[in-house]
Order: sequence, then C-alpha cells, then structure tokens
Amino acid sequence: MGAPEHRPTLQFDHVRQRSVHLAEPLSPEDCCAQSMPDASPVKWHLAHTTWFFETFILEPRGAGFRPFHPAFRVLFNSYYNGVGAKHPRPQRGLLTRPGLDQVLAYRRDVDARMVRLLAQSPHDRELAALVELGLQHEQQHQELILTDLKHLLSHNPLYPAYLDSPLAGAGPAEPLAWIAFDGGLAEIGHGGHGFAFDNELPRHRQYLAPFALASRLVSNGDYLEFVEAGGYRDPSLWLSEGWDLVARGTLRHPLYWVEGEAGEDWREFTLHGLQPLDPGRPATHLSLYEADAYARWRGARLPTEAEWEFAARDVAIACGDLHPRAAGSAGLAQMFGECWQWTSSSYAPYPGFAPAAGALGEYNGKFMINQYVLRGSSCATPHGHARASYRNFFPAGARWQFTGIRLAR
Amino acid sequence: MGAPEHRPTLQFDHVRQRSVHLAEPLSPEDCCAQSMPDASPVKWHLAHTTWFFETFILEPRGAGFRPFHPAFRVLFNSYYNGVGAKHPRPQRGLLTRPGLDQVLAYRRDVDARMVRLLAQSPHDRELAALVELGLQHEQQHQELILTDLKHLLSHNPLYPAYLDSPLAGAGPAEPLAWIAFDGGLAEIGHGGHGFAFDNELPRHRQYLAPFALASRLVSNGDYLEFVEAGGYRDPSLWLSEGWDLVARGTLRHPLYWVEGEAGEDWREFTLHGLQPLDPGRPATHLSLYEADAYARWRGARLPTEAEWEFAARDVAIACGDLHPRAAGSAGLAQMFGECWQWTSSSYAPYPGFAPAAGALGEYNGKFMINQYVLRGSSCATPHGHARASYRNFFPAGARWQFTGIRLAR
Amino acid sequence: MGAPEHRPTLQFDHVRQRSVHLAEPLSPEDCCAQSMPDASPVKWHLAHTTWFFETFILEPRGAGFRPFHPAFRVLFNSYYNGVGAKHPRPQRGLLTRPGLDQVLAYRRDVDARMVRLLAQSPHDRELAALVELGLQHEQQHQELILTDLKHLLSHNPLYPAYLDSPLAGAGPAEPLAWIAFDGGLAEIGHGGHGFAFDNELPRHRQYLAPFALASRLVSNGDYLEFVEAGGYRDPSLWLSEGWDLVARGTLRHPLYWVEGEAGEDWREFTLHGLQPLDPGRPATHLSLYEADAYARWRGARLPTEAEWEFAARDVAIACGDLHPRAAGSAGLAQMFGECWQWTSSSYAPYPGFAPAAGALGEYNGKFMINQYVLRGSSCATPHGHARASYRNFFPAGARWQFTGIRLAR
Amino acid sequence: MGAPEHRPTLQFDHVRQRSVHLAEPLSPEDCCAQSMPDASPVKWHLAHTTWFFETFILEPRGAGFRPFHPAFRVLFNSYYNGVGAKHPRPQRGLLTRPGLDQVLAYRRDVDARMVRLLAQSPHDRELAALVELGLQHEQQHQELILTDLKHLLSHNPLYPAYLDSPLAGAGPAEPLAWIAFDGGLAEIGHGGHGFAFDNELPRHRQYLAPFALASRLVSNGDYLEFVEAGGYRDPSLWLSEGWDLVARGTLRHPLYWVEGEAGEDWREFTLHGLQPLDPGRPATHLSLYEADAYARWRGARLPTEAEWEFAARDVAIACGDLHPRAAGSAGLAQMFGECWQWTSSSYAPYPGFAPAAGALGEYNGKFMINQYVLRGSSCATPHGHARASYRNFFPAGARWQFTGIRLAR
Repeated sequence: MGAPEHRPTLQFDHVRQRSVHLAEPLSPEDCCAQSMPDASPVKWHLAHTTWFFETFILEPRGAGFRPFHPAFRVLFNSYYNGVGAKHPRPQRGLLTRPGLDQVLAYRRDVDARMVRLLAQSPHDRELAALVELGLQHEQQHQELILTDLKHLLSHNPLYPAYLDSPLAGAGPAEPLAWIAFDGGLAEIGHGGHGFAFDNELPRHRQYLAPFALASRLVSNGDYLEFVEAGGYRDPSLWLSEGWDLVARGTLRHPLYWVEGEAGEDWREFTLHGLQPLDPGRPATHLSLYEADAYARWRGARLPTEAEWEFAARDVAIACGDLHPRAAGSAGLAQMFGECWQWTSSSYAPYPGFAPAAGALGEYNGKFMINQYVLRGSSCATPHGHARASYRNFFPAGARWQFTGIRLAR
Repeated sequence: MGAPEHRPTLQFDHVRQRSVHLAEPLSPEDCCAQSMPDASPVKWHLAHTTWFFETFILEPRGAGFRPFHPAFRVLFNSYYNGVGAKHPRPQRGLLTRPGLDQVLAYRRDVDARMVRLLAQSPHDRELAALVELGLQHEQQHQELILTDLKHLLSHNPLYPAYLDSPLAGAGPAEPLAWIAFDGGLAEIGHGGHGFAFDNELPRHRQYLAPFALASRLVSNGDYLEFVEAGGYRDPSLWLSEGWDLVARGTLRHPLYWVEGEAGEDWREFTLHGLQPLDPGRPATHLSLYEADAYARWRGARLPTEAEWEFAARDVAIACGDLHPRAAGSAGLAQMFGECWQWTSSSYAPYPGFAPAAGALGEYNGKFMINQYVLRGSSCATPHGHARASYRNFFPAGARWQFTGIRLAR
Repeated sequence: MGAPEHRPTLQFDHVRQRSVHLAEPLSPEDCCAQSMPDASPVKWHLAHTTWFFETFILEPRGAGFRPFHPAFRVLFNSYYNGVGAKHPRPQRGLLTRPGLDQVLAYRRDVDARMVRLLAQSPHDRELAALVELGLQHEQQHQELILTDLKHLLSHNPLYPAYLDSPLAGAGPAEPLAWIAFDGGLAEIGHGGHGFAFDNELPRHRQYLAPFALASRLVSNGDYLEFVEAGGYRDPSLWLSEGWDLVARGTLRHPLYWVEGEAGEDWREFTLHGLQPLDPGRPATHLSLYEADAYARWRGARLPTEAEWEFAARDVAIACGDLHPRAAGSAGLAQMFGECWQWTSSSYAPYPGFAPAAGALGEYNGKFMINQYVLRGSSCATPHGHARASYRNFFPAGARWQFTGIRLAR
Repeated sequence: MGAPEHRPTLQFDHVRQRSVHLAEPLSPEDCCAQSMPDASPVKWHLAHTTWFFETFILEPRGAGFRPFHPAFRVLFNSYYNGVGAKHPRPQRGLLTRPGLDQVLAYRRDVDARMVRLLAQSPHDRELAALVELGLQHEQQHQELILTDLKHLLSHNPLYPAYLDSPLAGAGPAEPLAWIAFDGGLAEIGHGGHGFAFDNELPRHRQYLAPFALASRLVSNGDYLEFVEAGGYRDPSLWLSEGWDLVARGTLRHPLYWVEGEAGEDWREFTLHGLQPLDPGRPATHLSLYEADAYARWRGARLPTEAEWEFAARDVAIACGDLHPRAAGSAGLAQMFGECWQWTSSSYAPYPGFAPAAGALGEYNGKFMINQYVLRGSSCATPHGHARASYRNFFPAGARWQFTGIRLAR
C-alpha cells in the first residue's frame, strides 16, 4: 500500500454511510440470501467490512478491547487464515441470525469506537494507513454488494428491480475507431502519492511493442452480431476451456440476456429490472472466454494489462451510474465508469512484489493463480476508487461482475 | 382418501391459523433461508400450502377465477408435473420476493375466498373432501416447517433457539420390556370413517408370524452405549450403504448431537437451543442405517410396518411437545407423539392401490421407490394428524425429521 | 444355505472350466478393462472366484497354507470387510498386472489344491457345503462376466461381437394372455433339498390376494409401441426418481437400443454385435423405472416376488442362449432362461432370516437396502443355477443385466 | 513453426521406431488401461501419432486415399475440432479393440505409405515441414507414454517396474549456489534455424530486471526438509487454491513419494519400481502449488519464463535417463534432461502470435488459458527434442509429469 493521505473522520463517515445507503431499498430477506458460493449476502458484506475495522484496528490497538460479539470473529472472517477459523463460504446465506438490525447495530458500535480512536490519534500515520485500507476494502465490497445482489435478483422469475427509476434508451454508440500507441519501455505500476494496493507495486519497467486500442467498449449491438453470426457454435473461435462450457450449454449469451420467445426481441436484466436490450450500451457480464472469442472473431485481441495502463495513464476518470452507458464522445472513451475490461494478462506479482506482513498480507498475493486481470472500473465502482494502475482480477469464467470488452490489436 | 367428515369453517381457520402461528417467533430472514435442497424455507411452506387451495379448489371452481399473482402458480408448485412448470427446488431460498408480508397477504386473500366458497357450498361433499385433503396437507407442512427450520438453525454457530422456554431434565426412561404379539392373518390399512391418504388404502390382509415389540423407544442413554462401544467403527453391524457413509465420515453420531471438547459431555441441538444430552429422552434424528445397525448390535431388528400397525391398532394417540419426552409408563409406550419409528418396510403400494385422478394422483404414488416407511408420529406432528394406519416415508439416509428406533424381534 | 448335495470333483471341474471357457474368445485387453464402477473386468472375475476358494476353504483348512501371491488377498477381495482391506472397486480396470496368464496360472494352482483337498475329504459335509457355495458364487460371476463384458463392448464404436455366430430372426412372439391365480396363504422361500442362498430362507407363509400374470415377457415390439407413443415424454407414467432420469436425458430407450439415423430402423447391441431390433424377442436391459412406467401405461403393474414365486413353483426351468428368445409356446412362458423379471418387492430379509456367521455372512444380508428383487433367470444364467425361490437383486436404475418385464394385475 | 531442416526417411524411421520400442517391455493390458482422463493408454498414443500422419499428410495429399480403418478418424482424434468428432477422452481405456497387434499393423501401414510419399517428393518443403511437425508431435507423445504409464503403474499395489535395471544411489547433490544475471532488454522466443512450435514465435523483446537463478534443481533432501518442517501445514506459504487442496488432503507430499510405516524411511515410485527416496536426486512430480510454496518457504520465488530462457540461451542440452539424476557439476546445472521447471508465467501468446491455418492451428493456441509454462526438459524427453525456447505447459495442479523446482530471486 502506498503512503496514506490525510483522511479525516468525514471521509470515514462518508464511505461507511454509503454501504448502509446501498442496502436501504432492500428487505431483510434480500440482504440475507446467497445465490452462489462466489457471491455473498448484502448483510454479510455489511458485517464483514465492519469486522475488518474491528479485527485489524480496534482489537490490536484497544487496551481493554472487547468484541461486539465474540462469535463474529469467525462468522465474518472472509479468507484470512492468519485470523483463525472461518464460517464456510457457501453457508453465508444460512446466517439468518444475527438479523439485519443487529448487523446495523454492529456497524454503529464499531463506527463509534473508530471515531473515538481517530479523534484520539490525529497524527498516527500507521492508523491512518490502516483506515485508508479499510475504506478502500469497503469500497470494493460496495461494488460486490451491487453485483452479488444483481445475481441474486436475477434468479427470481419476478425479475425485481433494485432501482425504481426507468432506464432510458441510450442512443447509438459512437463508431468504433482505433487509437494507436508507439509502445517502448514503459513504467508500469502505481507511482503517485495516493493510495494503492500492494499488488500495484512496485513500479517497474516493461517493454511494449506498438499497439492500438479500440476507442470504446464493444456494444450490445456489436455483440449481438457475433451471437447472430453463430459465434457460440464455432469451436475455432474459442479457447478450449471456453468451448467446453459452450458445448455443455453453460455459455450461450451474456449472463443477463434473456432470449425472447418466438419473434420477440432480446431483453437484459438490469438493476432497473428487465429491460429491452439497448444496442448502444456496452455488452457486459461476459466471461474472459467470451471476450476472447469475440475478439478473435473480429480479427482482434484483448489488450495486455500493461498496454491498457500505458494507454490510460492520462485519461480522466469517469464515475458510473449503476448500468453501463453508451459511448458518447470520440477519442479513447469508456476506460472508466462503465465496464471492467478483461485483459489477456494473468494475475501475477510485479517484479519485486512483497505482500504486507501478517494476516493483511493475505489480501492479494495468495490469489495470484488462475485469475486474469481486469482494468478500468465499472458503473458500480464507487466514486474515488478507480485509478489507471488498479488491478482487478477474476477467474476466466466469472460473469457476474460488470465485465466488458476493449479490443486491441 | 377416505370419506370426509364434516369440517366446518372453524376447522379450516384453526389449521390455517396454526401455520401462521408457527412462524411468529421468526424473523423474515429466518423464514426465507433454505439449508439444503430437501428442506424448504418457512415462507415457502406458508405459500405452498396456500397455493394448494388456490390451485386445486379455487381455480377449478371459480367462475371468473383470477390468481392472487400469476407467477405464484410456478413459484409455489412443489412437484405436481400435472400443474405445469415448477421453480427449481434447490433455489427456493433465493425467493426473497415475495417477502413474508406479501405471503401473509396471499394467505389472507385465499383464506377469505375459501371461506366464502365454503359458506356458499355447505353440502358439497366433493369440496369438503378436497378441503380436508388441503388441511391434512397443510398439517404435514406444519411438521416440515419445524424440522426444516431446526435444520436451518443448526447450521448457525450461534445455535439460536426457536422456543424461549427452558428444556427441563426428563428423568430416567422406564426400563425396556418386550411386548409379545401372536400375529396371524391381520387386516392392514385404513378401515375407519375418518380421513386417510390414498396410500393407506385399500385395507387388506397380511399374514404375520409371531413377534414382539420393545415397550418404548431407544433412549439417548441406550444409544450412547452403542456409540461408546464403537458401534460406528464395526462394519459387521451396518448395511453396506450405511457403512459407506460411516467410512466417509458422514455418519458419526445422531444428526444434532454435538461432541463436547475434551472432558465435556455430549450436547444436543433442540428447538430450545443447545442442551445437555438427556439420557432419558428418546434418541432422535437417526437414519434408517443407524436404526438398523443399532438393532443388530442389540440382537434385535426393526419392525415391519404391518407388525407396527397391528400392535398400534388400539393404542391411544398422544400429542407431542416439540421435543421427545422420556417414556413414563409401562406397556406399549411412545407409539405416538415422540419420534417417527423406522420400519424395515419399503414404501410400496398396497395390493389394489389406485392413486387419485389428475394432478392430485401425484400426491403419494410416484414416491414409492427407494423410500422406507416410518410409523407413529412425532413431537412435531400436529394434533389430530396421527393414526395407526398412517404411512410416513423418507429415504434411508434422511435424518432431519424426528426419527427414532422401536426395536422388534 | 440349504443342505448341500453330493458334488463330486467332476462338478467342481465343470463349473471352474466354464469360466475359463467364457474368456476364450477374448483378448487380454478385453479381459482387463472396466467400463464403470459397477462392472468388473473379466480377469478380475476369474481371479476373484478363485480367491473365494483360496480364502474361505484353502486358507482355514490348510495346515501350512501359503497363498499363491500374498497381495491377491487384497486385490481380489470384492466386499468382505471381515477379510480385511480391499482394492478400490472403481480401480479394478487399472490392474494390468497380474496379467491374464498369471490369473489363469492362479486358477490352475488353486484348482489343483482344491482337487487334492476334495480327494482327501470325501465325506466332509461342511467342506462340501463350502465348495457348493463357491461354485454357486462362481456361476453368479459367470453371468456377470457376460453382462460386464457386454457393457464394455457397447462403449466401443466398432460394436465388437463376442460371438461369431449370426443372430437369426426370431419370428413373432405368441400373443400375450393373462394367467389367473387364486392366491391365499402361500409358502414362500426355498423348501427343497438342493442348494439355496441364505436369502431364500426361511420358508414362511405369506397371504396373497388373487392375481394374474402375463403369459410371456414384454417383447421389443410391445415396448416399441410405448416408445413411439411418447412414453418417455409423459411424467404421469413415471416414478418421481425415474422421471428425474428421463428429464436429464439419462433414460431415453432400453440401454442397448441404437437409434437409427433419419429413416433407419432401430438396432440393438447384442453379444452377436449390432443387430436389427427383433420385435418378437423380449425387451431387455431395462431399469425398474422403465418396467414400472411401461406397466402403468398398459394399465397393469409389476408382480410382487411372492406372486412370481407362487406362480413359478411348478414351472420347468429352461436354459438360456446368451440372447433372449421369442416366446414360442402358450401357457406361462419365459419364466426362466430369457430375462430377469423386475418385481415391485424391495430386497428385504424373510421373517426369521439369519445370515451365516463370519465373513460369509456378508454375502447377502448387508445389501438389503434400496435394491429390488428380480425373479427367474436370464439367457446368461448358467445351467443348473436357476430355481423358483432364487432372489436376484439390483438397484432400480440398473440396466446392464438381462432385465425384462413380466406384467401382473 | 520455423523453417524445416532436411529430414530424410532415416529420421522418420528413427522417431517412429522409438515409440514402438518404448512399448516393448509392456503387455497388451499395460498398453490398454487409462488411469485418469488426463492420461492416455500407451496403445492410444501409438495410434494417435499415426493418425496424425494419416490425417494431416496422407489424406490431403493422397489421390485415391483410403483410410486404414474408417473408424480410426474418430477413435484417435485427440482434440482437433476442425477434423470432426472425437472419441470421449475419459473412455480411451475402454477401447480394447483395436488390439495392440492391430495398432502396430496400423503403424506399419501408415509408415509404408509415408515412406513411399517421402521417396516420391524429396524436394517438397511443405511436406518436409509437416513431417517435421508430425515427428516433433510424436516425440511429445513419447514423453507422455512414459509419464502416463508411470501414473498407471503407480496405482497397482504391486508397484511394477517398467525397467528391469536397478537404480543406483546417486550420491549427494552439489551445494546450491546463486547465479546472477544483469537482465535488461532481452530477445525472447525462437530465433535460430531449426524447428520450433508456433507458440515459441515470434521472437520479441522483453525487459528483465536483474535476477538470479539457483545453480541446480531442488533435491529430494531439500524438499524433505520442507515436508518435515511442516510446510504442508502452514497456510501462509500457499496460494489460496493450493491450500484448498492441502486442506482437503489431496496434496500431502510429492505425487510418488510413499510414506514408510512407523520408523521406516520414505520411498519413491519410479520407472524402476519402488525405491528408497534418494536425497541427492531432484524432487519431482510436484505441482506448481508445491513449487511456489517451497520457494516462498526458502525466501525465494519461481523464475519467469523469460528469465529462464535468457539464462539458458547458451547452456548445453543434456539428455535424460528416465529418472532425474543428482547435480554433479558446478555452474548452472540441470537446466535440461532432469525435470521440467515450473515458471511463474502463465501460458500466453507472444506479441504478434499467429496460429497455423486450419485444424493444425488448434495445436497450441487454444490452450492458452489457466496453464503455466514449464521450461527445460526432463529425463523422459526424447533426444533432440529440447531447446532453450521450448514452452511446455500444464495446469498448476498437474503432477504426473517429471516436474521440479528451479528457484529464482
């Protein structure tokens, strides 16, 4: 993690409040259910992010520390072996107790203790760094709250909407253009003063051959051409593992596309409920297998993460709106705030990478296997959380995040 | 089904109210979660029992019938292929919508329509028979509400109690004695005037050799002897399938027994929370494999369902108290109201069995494979639901019902 | 087991030779492969039947006994926990060593020792009983050699034939008639002087209501009507478990039927290779689910095992020809020598059943769960192995035996 | 693939003969069995390598081409979707027909046709290139013949030896030293005149920070220290996926190590049978998870494939002896001929990678997902098949190849 900036209590309150705010449209049942082992209940996210502050800040610093509830140490540990036992991940949805009310009380209790601690230690830079990490961690879970919830609601034949507001037609996307880059010896990795995760460090050199990136994300309209041209029936387009999924019937179209009955058009499940498929908006909820097959079909490829970062180094960061928007401007558009962009780079340590000491060293490093890097940010990424050096990562088959395609060649 | 008795609206109200009453101590989250595919959420039980009246009574009889919600026909169909599509059973816990409030509103709506219909048709015997079936069906689900909920709560490391009241020590069980029966040509199956399911019919003859039944159920104390004598380590005691489960570590003690750490005593999870294992109370939550192995270890066997019914034909029916009680009297005790009793009889049609016409014919007959009959009733069986000819059935490995052991020889 | 008859060395030689004779048309590779965990390699059968004599007769009686090979005790133990460790069943096909030659040498060695022992002990009735059991056991494996081999060869797209001889058209089957029986109190179970397995004992009374049996087995022509009428598409015909298999695509037609491409007729894989489906021959390789669904479709049912045995008590025993033949005579035909006949009876102990002491007690009793009884014998049953009281048993989904349908009502 | 060298018929004969030679110590059964879906029977390898010449050379070039057997096109297709249907991979061991004799006849037939074709077209460079590819392909399968066979034999409790010759003690390994490299802008990928696979191309630049490699592979003695120090019990050493396997009991020591009973020493299954674990020889049959955990425990890491290739560019290529030998010289030793060396690099296309046209384009590219690159060669790699730019690849959990550990830092 980089050197922390000064983050007053105000910042703490702001991030913490937003998590609660995200849950407001939801019932206690909505917050409790778990739709697959990879996703977690909203209530669990609310508790786990609180556990993080309690376990990594209050407990080691609190003379006379007493936990809010002794069982929560196990219940809300996600994957930190260094902290001890964990509740089995696939059973998070069975935790009907503590109820949502109790979890909100847990949040208030930890928040009050944190605010007292922050007030007592205004110049404690190590504390500030841990708080910063805790808030960045919470922002990651804010995005997961939305994507895990969307996954849950998508299993309900009633297709419930999280947001009441209608989703207006986006209009056509800008025509796709190619932006060329010369490459050469590039500096990759976090280099500025703000926060960064350990996996963005150290900054290091990498040689890039000349390359070009598409000016915008692949749109629903673009992707529909692939579907209608039989892209899901031609094995020559697919990585072997991807074709296995296609042949088994697991991959047939983007995750939340809903095939119309005879004669009807495609629809797409969104946080606004079921909507007509909008050709101008970016295609999203795609696996790396689909992104790679689409690129091959277009005679293109996916960018490496270094290419992406090099291209993005001076791009202004946009903020998202809970569903991807159509590209509305020329130049290198939609790098941030719409869809995470699959790269062809496996998630690996940068040369000289050193994880943090103790249990927090488990934050990133131990996942550096069989995962692929996504760059940019999505329509569900919180304000202030995105940057050019950010490395998101998921297995190649993951589809429940807001993932999309940026072509390269 | 036998000839229906006169069942006034009062009876309808009484049974329907009890389901709601069972859910009162529970939060919306408690009512929504599903702990395994074989168990269903409480909310789903509340809705499905309502769906039964709406689908099989209101819809065929209602000129101008309109469903409470058109999607509920699929959402709350359990297994009736004749009614159409079904929501996938393992995903019942993902139905956070409709919420508990809406399901309760659904119940009120259907109840009001049912009461109107009943008032309009006081002498309609076919209607009365269907209502009777619907209420018996609801009583079956009342038992499942309790056992499915217990299974759910058992997965929570907090071991939440459904009932606030403490569970007092039961005192020692009566000594086990053997009650002998002469056998001969017996009449088996429902023969009286009250309600019976189609699987209890037709009444027919069966030849029984002389036999004896144990005077009471196997107690926790009895069963603990088996555990401590290494019963779970001796393959010669087990059916081959049962030993496979033991060897894999799946069966090690009754389902809700909790092994004390070094030096501590066994405890048992109950609807009153985690309690010391009470040696006088019946051992419960056992598979047929365990019941059979225990019987073999004692040099005994399990009864056939015909033997059990023959012995029970004049036994008074006791009503349960949500946890099995110790046997407190001599003679043939604990036949009803404590634990369902595994028999060695596979669930098969009686000679001349004919299922009902239409979708209701799926109620029983199609499950007559790889299931074993349990007789009696349990501490969770509703008042008025038990009788000597009643045939409960579950797969040999099922343990989440209140199942126990009656020895025979 | 019943009292053994006098069985001279001649009988021993005859049965033992037949096993070797069955393997003669096969290559070492054919004898080594295993097509599923439930089936065993031919070589394994040849060795296991030999192990049975070595372990249960030579070892306990042999002063100075030395095993042919010390590792064979584990390698060729099938399921006797009382004998010690077992080689994992699904890995029998990986035992390329010992080779077929060595297994044949093992057979010759054990045979020579057995013949010496028999010559030394001409009046040892306990020995004679064990030898009888060993030979009956070997005959069971002779049938399995053929059915397991057929299953293996069926996985080869070349459809190799075990038998060179052609399979002639059988001609039409006799019309199906119904043979009525009065029932009453019947004696069931082995009652004569010859050999019987422990599961056929003790002979006991059972009450039978009047019933009728079909005069012959269901033919391919009969069954094809069911297929073509959409029998595999109508859930109302199926047991719930069976319909699950149908819905998953696992059950679509009898196991070895091969669907012709557009316009072509059905064919059937036989021990004579792939052959046109012969409408006159009995339908075979059917699960209990299919047998039950077919019976329901015809407005009939399957017999109980007691009904079958009662009807068969005076029927002459026919011997098979490695593929079922069409019914060629009136009266109660095809009870023996064509297809095992599914009954609706689960495999359970007769009243008073007592398994043998020691490891041989594992022969039958421990499988009395989730299996169903088949009666009669098949075209692959060895001469002299069938009798009216014989109880074969398999799980409801098993299809690789020569199983067929006898209707009852 | 690079420009082919002149390869006379002599070379063709030599490589083709060696495959047959490898199978000579084996019985038909040994050649037929399949121990897991990832491994293939020896007989299948013998046929598939022949199919490659028949399908990709004889068929497109043969006016009047007739296949040796029409069914072999499907039976012996490995994974080429472009060629049509494939026999299911997990069922290769069920192909008892064609027998080994027929497969050897198939080889002789195709060889004769190939030799005629080569004699007719001495200057056909495209043909020469395809033959070269076919021979390189066959050499890859020669290594798999040995590793797949070793895996099969390891499942036999008799631990059969493939090689009769004894395995002498290797003596201690040289002390491990660190060899430093300056790095900088390096040229990576095949650059010479000989054969290379498409995945080694195009040659391209990569920037390398300074690094060091261990002078030899990790030895059994080194690795035993890790085992005895509790390396398999400390989650902080493991990638998350690796720890899952350890926690499940799947990973406990290198694949073919056999734990001695109380007091005995470790042994290792080899192609010479079961042998005492030799501390001086390299540790082998390790997953990437184990290699990575070991490196972390030593405060080191695995090399990237570019680092490895850069260091190996001038190393002389040694040839293997079917079991890894101890390091006997100073300097950068054991780069070739002992164990494949796991790198931290995922298997990905080089910048500008273009697969071959047609079905042969499936050779490499479609596997570039969730696989990791191994460099060097092993004791089972055929003479003439290794080079510094060679990219072998397997999933992180693969252990049945001769895989070992080269440390970097």
